[in-house]
Amino acid sequence: MSTIPIHQLHEACRRALLALDVDERSASALAHATVEAERVGNSAVGLAHLFDYLDGFRTGRIDRRPRVVVESPAPTMITADAGGGIAQYAFGRALPDLLHRTREYGMAALWIRNSFTVGELGYYPRTLANEGLIAVAMANSPALMSIGGSSSRILGTNPIAYGYPQPGRLPLVIDQASSATAFVNIRKAAERQESIPRGWALDHDGRPTEDAAAAVDGALLPFGSHRGGNIALLIELLATLAGGSFSIGAPPFDSGSEGPGIGAFLLALDPTRLGSGDRAQRWLQRITAEHGVRLPALELETLPDQVDVDDELVDRLNRYANPD
Amino acid sequence: MSTIPIHQLHEACRRALLALDVDERSASALAHATVEAERVGNSAVGLAHLFDYLDGFRTGRIDRRPRVVVESPAPTMITADAGGGIAQYAFGRALPDLLHRTREYGMAALWIRNSFTVGELGYYPRTLANEGLIAVAMANSPALMSIGGSSSRILGTNPIAYGYPQPGRLPLVIDQASSATAFVNIRKAAERQESIPRGWALDHDGRPTEDAAAAVDGALLPFGSHRGGNIALLIELLATLAGGSFSIGAPPFDSGSEGPGIGAFLLALDPTRLGSGDRAQRWLQRITAEHGVRLPALELETLPDQVDVDDELVDRLNRYANPD
Repeated sequence: MSTIPIHQLHEACRRALLALDVDERSASALAHATVEAERVGNSAVGLAHLFDYLDGFRTGRIDRRPRVVVESPAPTMITADAGGGIAQYAFGRALPDLLHRTREYGMAALWIRNSFTVGELGYYPRTLANEGLIAVAMANSPALMSIGGSSSRILGTNPIAYGYPQPGRLPLVIDQASSATAFVNIRKAAERQESIPRGWALDHDGRPTEDAAAAVDGALLPFGSHRGGNIALLIELLATLAGGSFSIGAPPFDSGSEGPGIGAFLLALDPTRLGSGDRAQRWLQRITAEHGVRLPALELETLPDQVDVDDELVDRLNRYANPD
Repeated sequence: MSTIPIHQLHEACRRALLALDVDERSASALAHATVEAERVGNSAVGLAHLFDYLDGFRTGRIDRRPRVVVESPAPTMITADAGGGIAQYAFGRALPDLLHRTREYGMAALWIRNSFTVGELGYYPRTLANEGLIAVAMANSPALMSIGGSSSRILGTNPIAYGYPQPGRLPLVIDQASSATAFVNIRKAAERQESIPRGWALDHDGRPTEDAAAAVDGALLPFGSHRGGNIALLIELLATLAGGSFSIGAPPFDSGSEGPGIGAFLLALDPTRLGSGDRAQRWLQRITAEHGVRLPALELETLPDQVDVDDELVDRLNRYANPD
């Protein structure tokens, strides 16, 4: 592990992307989102995940110079066609309009379509919560998960995230997948020849399994059984509403030459219009201080100016930046 | 069991309410919602639940002639203070404005506050989906459930429901609590001296328990562990945003003389503005027909014109209507 100042990590990410001829604006947006994920401690979608993007740019699954089209089909609705590029850049392009419309109308939503998988989903609502807005984000992703007893992979691990501003401190940001576990945990268990808990996955024939190798060929299960599946279904329906690929037809993010082209939905609300003040913030303080509620998301007091990253990842990153 | 035409059940409900001197408009709204719950097969919040309302009106927990105040603090935001009355009536009062604003701006939301518990939550998004809108509803309720490892009851069973229009057939409506089980199931198990599954509840000291009697004095747990708890927290934050009581301070719905005064959030979107047509409907058909996904909510083909109800409940209802 090395401790690296965030501006240095940002620059290393950006240079690696530019070395692949990625457009400056996409490179900056993705470097920023990658560093933010590390700062909030969500390293699974931080630097380690950047290599999925780098491989995606290299192989053409992600467009290096996408033509992003932002439109507004209704006063509170914004759509951003990511043009086969990254969601973070499309988001940045639509953000000023989303902020403006949310403040003007009280509420607005952005749909991103035709993008690579979203990375750290919490990034989007956190950005809005830092502007004083409440935000809920949902995204779909290539199919890995069964719902409704199907033996097929129907939905992605479809994450949901939300951000709630807390004046004077970091916003509350929750970010979670709809699957009982991440696919990588099943793959790791299979490599170690370990069993997996019941409720994580089905085998290829749709039977519940504790055999990790069988689960790799099968399908994940939603968290919390059919109720989690119903949440994942809502995410699928809203995330694809403006034309994002359904999970079931979306190409994988980590192989082939075609990108997933999935969708994301981002709802923003301006709480100041409802005049609720710091009522919820006081309630959050009360349930944690007086009732012992532990929410890890509330325990983040500041975002660090330096982060610990794996030396091997830094070396890989620098090899991308300096290929010779 | 008796089979009763729905207009007859509606009239019996309405007369029982009027006999308690409930305002005609509240009585009609509640009779309608009660019959609808029976028609969609959700009888736990149908006729059986009406007696909780009747008792609430009788004892003053629900205002019989509430002063409902509907306001619009922003173009897409509507608040309805239910005045201590039922949520269904406040909803009906705000509905025309909600429909109008959703169609005008693409999206709008209604917050109900200061109301009795919402009854069948699916009723609200179903009403909007029948108008061609996508809707998501969330409500809180008096605290029964622990989150974040607390030994206290922090949240209600905070339900979420959504409706998705399907032209030519009934809308898809999903309606579920955020708790692993309903409190009534724990009470029934305690009466029968049966154990309950792990993951349903904590005892009074916050320890996981399989002892139903200990759970009755303890707290429910969310579905799907902390992920379900995070969904319940989002529901709490959004449902109370316009001033509804937090679950933790809300008086119970079934005892005392003060109503819960909780909140509900209802988001409506006009999908026609996004031009997605019947894409999602075809996808739903495909995952059910080709991939064996079973969604009970999709299997409801028509709403019946008559329903089967328990004779004892009908007798009780008629005694309310004809108290002499």
